[in-house]
Amino acid sequence: MVDYFMKKAILEAEKAYDMDEVPVGAVVVKDGKIIGRGFNQKELAKDATKHAEILAINEACKTLNAWRLTGCTMYVTLEPCAMCAGALVNSRIDNLIIGARDPKTGACGSVFNIVNEEKLNHGINVEFGVMEDECSTMLKDFFKKLRSRDDD
Amino acid sequence: MVDYFMKKAILEAEKAYDMDEVPVGAVVVKDGKIIGRGFNQKELAKDATKHAEILAINEACKTLNAWRLTGCTMYVTLEPCAMCAGALVNSRIDNLIIGARDPKTGACGSVFNIVNEEKLNHGINVEFGVMEDECSTMLKDFFKKLRSRDDD
Repeated sequence: MVDYFMKKAILEAEKAYDMDEVPVGAVVVKDGKIIGRGFNQKELAKDATKHAEILAINEACKTLNAWRLTGCTMYVTLEPCAMCAGALVNSRIDNLIIGARDPKTGACGSVFNIVNEEKLNHGINVEFGVMEDECSTMLKDFFKKLRSRDDD
Repeated sequence: MVDYFMKKAILEAEKAYDMDEVPVGAVVVKDGKIIGRGFNQKELAKDATKHAEILAINEACKTLNAWRLTGCTMYVTLEPCAMCAGALVNSRIDNLIIGARDPKTGACGSVFNIVNEEKLNHGINVEFGVMEDECSTMLKDFFKKLRSRDDD
């Protein structure tokens, strides 16, 4: 089931890829059902808050008609940044399954560890490395495509 | 001018107060003009991403038709949390003027320092303590009001 839902997050990331956005995708799952989906739309929306995770949280809150995502799991193709990790803590999500690590801006252990900080009133169970190769290959391909355009 | 714009952020926080939301307000200023406003709407919107700062950033991006808030200053009544501090870094805002400190969840020096982390590719000029008494008194009054209701 873990791979099944990460594949759904990858499908979201592919939507971003096709729109020339950095390919990151996320889904929120509760009781075996997807209740929120999102893909990075920063350039399209011209708004740097429109990351995959924020949009997936927004949809999940609408589905549940509640701000508390208790009992929910997020599957995301790339380690969330500080903004998104903070949003997951604010939303009290229980579990977070991550594809690829982000050593430059990741906030789930790489640059910061926002999802497990004892001073905050909520911590998240985190699992790294689910379908990591697929998730990181898509990102590498994307930046390779960008660079090849710059060379034209 | 610093007090002038912080008063505008306090006006936003008062809107939250009147709606029984934790009273936090924010404005984004560019070239002496307010281009984005926001107040905390977490309960109303049933979505924990709807903090004052995120909503002010959303409006500022719409006004500028751009995700980069270069040359902009945010005035906010309470030290931003990890989500909002991360959103400000993602948006490349230049300056951040804060009313009251938040020792429990503040991410601009209190629990984390996301706005000045050398590993990230953007840092923000931060000033604390502008109209601090007004900003913190409003929060204290709000929580006192909540407690008095619980006692009824």
